[in-house]
Amino acid sequence: MVEASFMDDLKQEIDRGIKELLWGKEPATLYEPMYYLFESGGKRIRPILVILSCQAVGGHLHNCLPAALSVELLHTFTLIHDDMMDHDDLRRGRPTVHKCWDEGIAILAGDGLVTLAYQTLLKNSHPKLTEVVQIFTNGLFEICEGQALDMAFESRDTITVDEYHRMITKKTARLLQVSCEIGVILGNGSEDERELLGRFALQLGRGFQIQDDLLDILSNQRILGKPQGSDLTKKKKTYPVIHFLQHASAEAIETFRSYWGIQQMKPDHLDHIIQLFHQAGTLDEVQKEVDVHFQSAKQALEGFPSAPGGRDLNLLLDSLWSRVS
Amino acid sequence: MVEASFMDDLKQEIDRGIKELLWGKEPATLYEPMYYLFESGGKRIRPILVILSCQAVGGHLHNCLPAALSVELLHTFTLIHDDMMDHDDLRRGRPTVHKCWDEGIAILAGDGLVTLAYQTLLKNSHPKLTEVVQIFTNGLFEICEGQALDMAFESRDTITVDEYHRMITKKTARLLQVSCEIGVILGNGSEDERELLGRFALQLGRGFQIQDDLLDILSNQRILGKPQGSDLTKKKKTYPVIHFLQHASAEAIETFRSYWGIQQMKPDHLDHIIQLFHQAGTLDEVQKEVDVHFQSAKQALEGFPSAPGGRDLNLLLDSLWSRVS
Repeated sequence: MVEASFMDDLKQEIDRGIKELLWGKEPATLYEPMYYLFESGGKRIRPILVILSCQAVGGHLHNCLPAALSVELLHTFTLIHDDMMDHDDLRRGRPTVHKCWDEGIAILAGDGLVTLAYQTLLKNSHPKLTEVVQIFTNGLFEICEGQALDMAFESRDTITVDEYHRMITKKTARLLQVSCEIGVILGNGSEDERELLGRFALQLGRGFQIQDDLLDILSNQRILGKPQGSDLTKKKKTYPVIHFLQHASAEAIETFRSYWGIQQMKPDHLDHIIQLFHQAGTLDEVQKEVDVHFQSAKQALEGFPSAPGGRDLNLLLDSLWSRVS
Repeated sequence: MVEASFMDDLKQEIDRGIKELLWGKEPATLYEPMYYLFESGGKRIRPILVILSCQAVGGHLHNCLPAALSVELLHTFTLIHDDMMDHDDLRRGRPTVHKCWDEGIAILAGDGLVTLAYQTLLKNSHPKLTEVVQIFTNGLFEICEGQALDMAFESRDTITVDEYHRMITKKTARLLQVSCEIGVILGNGSEDERELLGRFALQLGRGFQIQDDLLDILSNQRILGKPQGSDLTKKKKTYPVIHFLQHASAEAIETFRSYWGIQQMKPDHLDHIIQLFHQAGTLDEVQKEVDVHFQSAKQALEGFPSAPGGRDLNLLLDSLWSRVS
């Protein structure tokens, strides 16, 4: 990801805040696994969205930093619990929390993070704080619903594109929307600004997730921090798979199914799958779908041309659009 | 437990509210495991404490019902996740959620419940709602810390009585205190009333938990809804065990250690342990400790002699004090 320097600065600010909340605290059995994933990297997209949205409507960093930290804490909670539910061994190039410690510790670390997210959010002082907490909570509930849908998809043969979109909207895109909306509210933005930046983030989130599905197939382990094709190994109904199963020839599908779900996928298998997806027009179509969402997100930003936050949101969008991991 | 009829009425009100939130909702993969434990019984002590505390300071049921439901939702979340961490197979006479479904579903059901707890709490309209959410959140964080301490105790040889008290205060007693404090605030009670009922609940919670440790040894499976002696099987450092290890003869301790942690504990073993505990004076001392806390809770209630809520809090206390399961 090409990162503008303002993003580096914000990341440092966010990481300092997170460290202050978690580092060296007791009981260590709770705090160490809570902090672990923050040391493994991560883009900090959600807290950056809070801050830039706040700035885009004229607010300042100090108006929204606790809220920014709280959405990152919440996001990290979902990563820890999702990794357990999905039986993932690697995250950001390191063993997942339940692999590094055990499942009990990982459950509790997640529970601790969601609680700390609320504690931190409640540090903001703003007349609309109750509304902010409500938006945050409704977003969290949708994440749970999205994860439930994702898990329910596992046992089903076919998933429609609509069902897929509903799932990723809840599981991924809504928290990005929540981040922007909270930033706008804490920056004392208008209802229109909230609607606009909310729409921007929703589209950004959808584009981001579909792109994630694509990168899982196309990008390599060193860059991803997890094995290439790990969604294929787990037979996830990702957007590329859904498209391929709907549009490829019966013969191509049969070949694909012989690889799909294999535990130790070899580079040859992956290359073959990529070739099949290419021939069925899936890679092009999925990239087109990614572009549609990012383009639509960009349009929503047109209302914020000159403000510094608006410019930076555009830069953030571009850097995500062109990412390779 | 001898239950006064007002408690039956409140339980019905609470169960109706919980059912309305959870029953028959979609996605079923999320809502069914969230609702499951509510159908297995439970005393509903925490929501009853919210309501009675609210009434004790002059408030009404409708001022605090959502908050009452939210503490029960929160409590149920902790049961589901704790059962996983403690590898428990039975709860309230039925398989635990992760046994009935699987671990992924149970993690998510817990996450869904804690979120719904916040959603429900936020339905209260009160000028001090932010403070209520803060108290609720701080209580939740202490529960996580308490669970972390409890898990950390497992790998240690000896635990002091002070450490034990610190753990149960966080893991069990604080949520009872939080329940009463929230009830007082929503009923527009004074700071003094909040302090008094908070103290009452803290002592009630400590007495309740130590009694729980004792009942695990003395009460049978049919009444408990889980195997008698299950804490002993898991080598939990309960209050009776801590007392026994500090006060029994070396010979008695050696005999006890030969049973402690056995997976399939036979009635003979349990009878022998009970005999050893009796001889060491542990059973009497633990009951005395239970009584000290309940007595102290009763004293805190003396400020509320005539109000209906105060009278009912006394009845609740008495029914818990004399419980056999």
